[in-house]
Amino acid sequence: MAELKSPTIGWIGTGVMGKSMAGRLLESDYNVNIFTRTPAKAEELLNLGAQWNESVKSLAEESDMIITMVGYPSDVEEVYFGEDGLLQNAAEGTYIIDMTTSSPELAVKMDQEASKRKIRVLDAPVSGGDVGAKEGTLSIMVGGEEAAFHDVRFLFDLLGSQTVLQGPAGSGQFTKMCNQIAIASNMMGVSESLVYAEAAGLDPNTVLESISGGAAGSWSLSNLTPRVIKGDLEPGFYVKHFIKDMKIAIESAEKMELNLPGLKLAKQLYDQISADGYANSGTQALYKYYK
Amino acid sequence: MAELKSPTIGWIGTGVMGKSMAGRLLESDYNVNIFTRTPAKAEELLNLGAQWNESVKSLAEESDMIITMVGYPSDVEEVYFGEDGLLQNAAEGTYIIDMTTSSPELAVKMDQEASKRKIRVLDAPVSGGDVGAKEGTLSIMVGGEEAAFHDVRFLFDLLGSQTVLQGPAGSGQFTKMCNQIAIASNMMGVSESLVYAEAAGLDPNTVLESISGGAAGSWSLSNLTPRVIKGDLEPGFYVKHFIKDMKIAIESAEKMELNLPGLKLAKQLYDQISADGYANSGTQALYKYYK
Repeated sequence: MAELKSPTIGWIGTGVMGKSMAGRLLESDYNVNIFTRTPAKAEELLNLGAQWNESVKSLAEESDMIITMVGYPSDVEEVYFGEDGLLQNAAEGTYIIDMTTSSPELAVKMDQEASKRKIRVLDAPVSGGDVGAKEGTLSIMVGGEEAAFHDVRFLFDLLGSQTVLQGPAGSGQFTKMCNQIAIASNMMGVSESLVYAEAAGLDPNTVLESISGGAAGSWSLSNLTPRVIKGDLEPGFYVKHFIKDMKIAIESAEKMELNLPGLKLAKQLYDQISADGYANSGTQALYKYYK
Repeated sequence: MAELKSPTIGWIGTGVMGKSMAGRLLESDYNVNIFTRTPAKAEELLNLGAQWNESVKSLAEESDMIITMVGYPSDVEEVYFGEDGLLQNAAEGTYIIDMTTSSPELAVKMDQEASKRKIRVLDAPVSGGDVGAKEGTLSIMVGGEEAAFHDVRFLFDLLGSQTVLQGPAGSGQFTKMCNQIAIASNMMGVSESLVYAEAAGLDPNTVLESISGGAAGSWSLSNLTPRVIKGDLEPGFYVKHFIKDMKIAIESAEKMELNLPGLKLAKQLYDQISADGYANSGTQALYKYYK
């Protein structure tokens, strides 16, 4: 679609991440069609010039490229499949990018269904949080055909500062799972390190001075532990969303006959704090498991 | 001891770390007395001008400041306590620094015994590995009296680039345990992330491009995972020593009635790979648990 100077972009999903990301497209003067389940959440974007669509079906019919950023794999299924879904209603040649963190197997299924209809689908989940979404500094992990990747690369470049084509359909989701798997066990490590420091009567800030620059160093230790020390459990990333991601990773690992005991344990501990009332806290709330 | 321009430093323990560290004192023209269980390991330092001592006892008698860097808490006990140990034989006013990673409770016991004899003991374990030891860029975590800390600070400054007095006796060891606790669970995270990437058919180097700069980022992910990908299990830090440290941390946590399930699980997995023949590999060999 190199000849298309000003494609119309359809955008589905305007949560914390989706809203900031769609806002960046509007700032760059793209035509943006919006559909989202809760219309009130789209208001800000409509004020910035986005067009409202009444349904997934009408958005599909009126957009050249479509980006979805919804919540759960079940939402992705609903948006893509069925009579009123994207795949049934998008024209041949449409590009559709799912940036939701979702199941790799579902991404493969979407790609297969799309191929039959000459629609190009990419899976492209992100990391970098709300700040990365606002500033366009996300890391974008892409699965799908190389040609389609290059055709929509300009969109990724508006949204992220690090975009890597990881392989065929599903590879973006698989890579995002690698990211979440690494985080899951590390969150136990940083939480346990902090509760141990406190129990030993140490000043946790002084401990961080000694350990955060070395072999124990991590993004979570440098960024989340200071928040916990201050008693700040506000979500950068929600416990409930992290649990969703770990569930996808565990199911996906089981399909590959991989046993990942660290990941499973982390999921159990997060399930516990979710049951204890921290589902809407940030992932640093894992600390509460130990108190 | 500000008046003592050229104190004689006693050094016990010349493993990979101890040898490089003692070498730095010799390079700065300090008089260094050496004792070590395996005399051959001291040879290099003797060639650099160190004096050999036949026993802990004679070293204690002939040194103003003594640094120990041995293997296990049992080695520390042997060197400090008993008829021929440091505490029995060092003169009043001697400074003794244990830089071994050892038990916080043992450090407290050493301090109590030393106080009775007007000897000053500090616990000062390090992180930063063989490279940090060679280059004098260790992170040194110190427990003990502030006055003693300041008196021997010049030695820490020769050995490390980040030295923090963490609190009273035992606090250095407690802080080092915080460091090891954070590493333990993270090693599961980075290992599981890698085996998942491989099982999914991804290129792990390309996955690292996407994930190592963000929220999943850690020293281990950036430094150890590339080694595993290349098949390099050579020790930066030995599995057997890491197991020793986790054992100390678990025992210490139990004394404080803390339950640290991530740490316990990591120890189990490391025990398994140790039994499978990886005790003398680097900690990145945890990957082998999953294969």
